[in-house]
Amino acid sequence: MSSTAGQVIKCKAAVSWEAGKPLVIEEVEVAPPQAGEVRLKILYTSLCHTDVYFWEAKGQTPLFPRIFGHEAGGIVESVGEGVTHLKPGDHALPVFTGECGDCPHCKSEESNMCDLLRINTDRGVMIHDSQTRFSIKGQPIYHFVGTSTFSEYTVVHAGCVAKVNPAAPLDKICVLSCGICTGLGATINVAKPKPGSSVAIFGLGAVGLAAAEGARISGASRIIGVDLVSSRFEEAKKFGVNEFVNPKDHDKPVQEVIAAMTNGGVDRAVECTGSIQAMISAFECVHDGWGVAVLVGVPNKDDAFKTHPVNFLNERTLKGTFYGNYKPRTDLPSVVEKYMNGELELEKFITHTVPFSEINKAFDYMLKGESIRCIIRMGE
Amino acid sequence: MSSTAGQVIKCKAAVSWEAGKPLVIEEVEVAPPQAGEVRLKILYTSLCHTDVYFWEAKGQTPLFPRIFGHEAGGIVESVGEGVTHLKPGDHALPVFTGECGDCPHCKSEESNMCDLLRINTDRGVMIHDSQTRFSIKGQPIYHFVGTSTFSEYTVVHAGCVAKVNPAAPLDKICVLSCGICTGLGATINVAKPKPGSSVAIFGLGAVGLAAAEGARISGASRIIGVDLVSSRFEEAKKFGVNEFVNPKDHDKPVQEVIAAMTNGGVDRAVECTGSIQAMISAFECVHDGWGVAVLVGVPNKDDAFKTHPVNFLNERTLKGTFYGNYKPRTDLPSVVEKYMNGELELEKFITHTVPFSEINKAFDYMLKGESIRCIIRMGE
Repeated sequence: MSSTAGQVIKCKAAVSWEAGKPLVIEEVEVAPPQAGEVRLKILYTSLCHTDVYFWEAKGQTPLFPRIFGHEAGGIVESVGEGVTHLKPGDHALPVFTGECGDCPHCKSEESNMCDLLRINTDRGVMIHDSQTRFSIKGQPIYHFVGTSTFSEYTVVHAGCVAKVNPAAPLDKICVLSCGICTGLGATINVAKPKPGSSVAIFGLGAVGLAAAEGARISGASRIIGVDLVSSRFEEAKKFGVNEFVNPKDHDKPVQEVIAAMTNGGVDRAVECTGSIQAMISAFECVHDGWGVAVLVGVPNKDDAFKTHPVNFLNERTLKGTFYGNYKPRTDLPSVVEKYMNGELELEKFITHTVPFSEINKAFDYMLKGESIRCIIRMGE
Repeated sequence: MSSTAGQVIKCKAAVSWEAGKPLVIEEVEVAPPQAGEVRLKILYTSLCHTDVYFWEAKGQTPLFPRIFGHEAGGIVESVGEGVTHLKPGDHALPVFTGECGDCPHCKSEESNMCDLLRINTDRGVMIHDSQTRFSIKGQPIYHFVGTSTFSEYTVVHAGCVAKVNPAAPLDKICVLSCGICTGLGATINVAKPKPGSSVAIFGLGAVGLAAAEGARISGASRIIGVDLVSSRFEEAKKFGVNEFVNPKDHDKPVQEVIAAMTNGGVDRAVECTGSIQAMISAFECVHDGWGVAVLVGVPNKDDAFKTHPVNFLNERTLKGTFYGNYKPRTDLPSVVEKYMNGELELEKFITHTVPFSEINKAFDYMLKGESIRCIIRMGE
């Protein structure tokens, strides 16, 4: 038992007081974990588009002051009542979605959309008692997707914490908490390309590059990147992308361009942009008879996916995925092992690192489109 | 070698001279099979909606005079040059779609949409020489989907002929040539419900009942029939349907009715009506996390399938199927065995039989909605 167990911990956190304004490093009080919760000491965290999206709060109900952050690696400091699968000292990745183990989704082999711990971007409090565990001089500071990793210590529902190999470097595997697994799993777990097959990846951001990495690991021989920014192709080559299409360079729909390149269509397509037109193109560019398209990107509220039903009847499949269909607690340890045995190359995703004191730089890199992942070193 | 091999055979055929007018039994001349073709003596044929649809010719370019018919059982009379997998005397089922064995689809484990022999409803001639094999006093009579089984003898591409167990009664297994396999395979091969699962079947016509039969065989415990005609439920019970929803009885969308009945949605749905609204409902009524919907029914030309993409992102899958994903030559023998071992109950589908001379009665039964399948006994 650590000496801080059961005590309030005072530590530094990057607090977002207002939408779109730079985070402020503050001293916060972090309450002990309650029943079913874990308090983690965060060592490394990384910035994901979802943090930026909710920090900008352009589309959603704003909830401030809030501590963002949901990609991280840390060490269990203490556990609340009833937590049995984690103990102080365990190396762990917090995840924005969880695995209660008891609901129909957790019991299904196919789903990872836990009824209890499914992502909730509106909730700023813990499920157990609808309270925050963060405060500054008595003022509650809201949580973000149950993780709030932009803090030296954070409290997370135990169902949202994956125990991982302590030999794995947390400054690398922390990126598995969200975007990288989302893209990687979309390809490996859902699209399932066969060795030698063709895969189109729509969108060459972090998630799309992870989807490409999944195609590379799966042994796909043609990995066609599709992006409106041609300069992204160069970076994408490292992730196995060996052909490139910029829809702007063609005067016909990109699905027709791809069909012409591939004798009727690709074997698999993975959509990582969230653009409704890209979703339709990704579906319509897969080959009849066996093509599978997988949707990953999050669309706008009012978007409608629209296609002629004959595209389905000609034996195409369309699926969607959430967090790459990984069950966080059950499956993350094996993804970490894929990194440890050299199959999965995480270093390629990490383009920048900054000390915690300069966390706002990570936002700048992302907003300028310069970074894939920027690692934030806590305690510096 | 039969004594008729290489000769023109004169026999009876039911000729459709004009759209929507009763067929006329005529003496036709049936030329010998050319390279890659087979001449079959048809013993039993059954009537399918697709025959009626093209006979009515309300939507398509009419092609007359024509010999319809595509569900049948017969015996190989003679084979053309290069045909090795069939010989005179073999029991066989002709199929409206084929398996050349050489194209990417035939080589794929997943597809049955042969490039060469995929269904073509506009073509009224043989592929080999763009000629008909039927004539009356020199006037060519067009073929229908390469089968034209409303004739005592017909010529079919060998890739469209499945050799089957000679012990199997042709007056029963003839229904496997089209509708029954289409529905059965949609469930067994594509939706793949697990034992104990829930399946919604949209449309309780012949194809929908076959889809229900597939769900029954798969061990589904809840088989929910959805149809606008409530009286169909009684018949459907024989096929395993144990719950029924008539969308007309509810003031909310049927997908919401089904979700409420099933704690969030069915495990699988199979759409067998071709109505675009039913397609959307079938997709939206499957459970998030693991639900799979399969489209079977043929839509109108201008229909658009439309749904919110989040329905996919919540881990639902939508697939389409053609002929139940069965490869005709490779897979039909095993479906026949399913009937022979009692697993598949074909008798339930056969509600009427008529002698060939009364073939127009089969059209009447179907147009009145009285029959599931009416078997036509050739030579009577």
